[in-house]
Amino acid sequence: MILTVTLNTALDVTYTVDALVPHGSHRVRGVAERPGGKGVNVARVLAALGHEAVVTGFAGGPTGEALRRLLAPLPVRDALVPAEGTTRRTVAVVDSASGDTTQFNEPGPQVSAGEWAALLSAYEELLAGAEAVALCGSLPPGIHVGAYADLVRRARAAGVPVLLDTSGEPLRRGLAARPDLVKPNADELAALTGSREPLRAARDARRRGARAVVASLGPDGLLALTPEGIWRATPPQAVRGNPTGAGDSAVAGLLSALVEGLPWPDRLARAVALSAATVLAPAAGEFDRAAYGELLERVTVAEDTAAA
Amino acid sequence: MILTVTLNTALDVTYTVDALVPHGSHRVRGVAERPGGKGVNVARVLAALGHEAVVTGFAGGPTGEALRRLLAPLPVRDALVPAEGTTRRTVAVVDSASGDTTQFNEPGPQVSAGEWAALLSAYEELLAGAEAVALCGSLPPGIHVGAYADLVRRARAAGVPVLLDTSGEPLRRGLAARPDLVKPNADELAALTGSREPLRAARDARRRGARAVVASLGPDGLLALTPEGIWRATPPQAVRGNPTGAGDSAVAGLLSALVEGLPWPDRLARAVALSAATVLAPAAGEFDRAAYGELLERVTVAEDTAAA
Repeated sequence: MILTVTLNTALDVTYTVDALVPHGSHRVRGVAERPGGKGVNVARVLAALGHEAVVTGFAGGPTGEALRRLLAPLPVRDALVPAEGTTRRTVAVVDSASGDTTQFNEPGPQVSAGEWAALLSAYEELLAGAEAVALCGSLPPGIHVGAYADLVRRARAAGVPVLLDTSGEPLRRGLAARPDLVKPNADELAALTGSREPLRAARDARRRGARAVVASLGPDGLLALTPEGIWRATPPQAVRGNPTGAGDSAVAGLLSALVEGLPWPDRLARAVALSAATVLAPAAGEFDRAAYGELLERVTVAEDTAAA
Repeated sequence: MILTVTLNTALDVTYTVDALVPHGSHRVRGVAERPGGKGVNVARVLAALGHEAVVTGFAGGPTGEALRRLLAPLPVRDALVPAEGTTRRTVAVVDSASGDTTQFNEPGPQVSAGEWAALLSAYEELLAGAEAVALCGSLPPGIHVGAYADLVRRARAAGVPVLLDTSGEPLRRGLAARPDLVKPNADELAALTGSREPLRAARDARRRGARAVVASLGPDGLLALTPEGIWRATPPQAVRGNPTGAGDSAVAGLLSALVEGLPWPDRLARAVALSAATVLAPAAGEFDRAAYGELLERVTVAEDTAAA
């Protein structure tokens, strides 16, 4: 079983409008809701790859109930912890003509000390049966900034490989707890290290405590700095579409290949192919299975022996 | 008791963001929810003016529950009819620097024939105890376009004065059922009559069946064509602020003054003062009580004997 932790789960709402007009009034043509938060997306892709996936984090209020109702029919196990506060919504407004998206993210609920203690206890129990764990996304208000560092330490103590995918101060603190893997994008790396040069920034991130760093460079694929070597994995061509969830699919690719015992180049190829197949899928956060199969054969993974 | 009917009630959500950037991603700084739909707003203002107010219409799904929870502590009576479908949300995104608002309105639930029959039966019962009724806002999907015309006829048959505040085809059909009063704004009048000249357009609207037409002309106040004469009511000065709910406050002013037996000039002065005091209030849909008192003394109401 692979465990994903999403402390700030979300009810993802998508509005389709004719075209966004700032300060105008819009008739929403279509409303779609799906269970959201990065770890929830990761779990769905893991399940689609044939892995048993369990999601934990917090769910509360009417949106928390709606989230759980939408999770119920999916092939992932709901181990969310109840909270008093209301789970946040995210609203994506899609222009139907251009496909351009304008995103609004609510901050999320206040989480109490008692609720955090309940989450830690559920987490420890779940870790006992986990082959790997992914810690994903932003922190809701009221949770201390070192929360992910705490979860990283507990995973390491339990001997479970741990991937951290967050940003800002929670990432900085989490790195110091020595996770097995972090997967920052270029902006997150730059915010962490002050450098926009991926190799330099990823080296800096590794020095801060990560055993391996896989930097996602958008259409340029992935750059991996690991104890076994440095690799660059690139998709066969630039893909156009909706990048929502592409990073989460990369996380699912890396984690699933890790628990299957595959070497780094295979892990990276899978992550790049899944990521590109997610951009190609019409619905945000889904991946195109046929495209995934084709892309997987054609991803280039090159070891960078000069840089190592 | 004054009854307000809102067939397409709403949970009004307000997001505060730093500034709207089309196709960007926004962190929502503040989330506020209030019970919404035009008739709900009218009822709140009626209650604030000391009238007993009852709201009916449909409520369903998690947003319908949230709406009813938010209504419960307010001094209006909830006589909403349960529906299977989910009550719509409206999302207003406010730029915190400029105060400019970008509005997204969901379409609303599918309403079944059985639910419409349940509403009619509740409506007939409520009419028996009503001094006046306001029919407000858009129609949810699945309700026939002549729904308001039907409600107008039933109010007339019950001898209850009826005000209709809607737009488009539901307004056109509703007019033919001869409501006592309609309150279109300039855009709604133009869409109905093809004329942007308020006097000409309001005359046309009266010919289509309304006993009286009160056209709201934004900062220029109100133009009233009634069997007793033609009046123009204007605020003492242009007011700046959030116009959301100003039309609903005008409806509450007209109806409350009607049931109090006040003559037209007093009804119009109240409607204009309430409307301006609503624009001045910081929260959408509230009115500034002190400003209302001051404005009421200074509204100009002039009879237009030449036009009559």
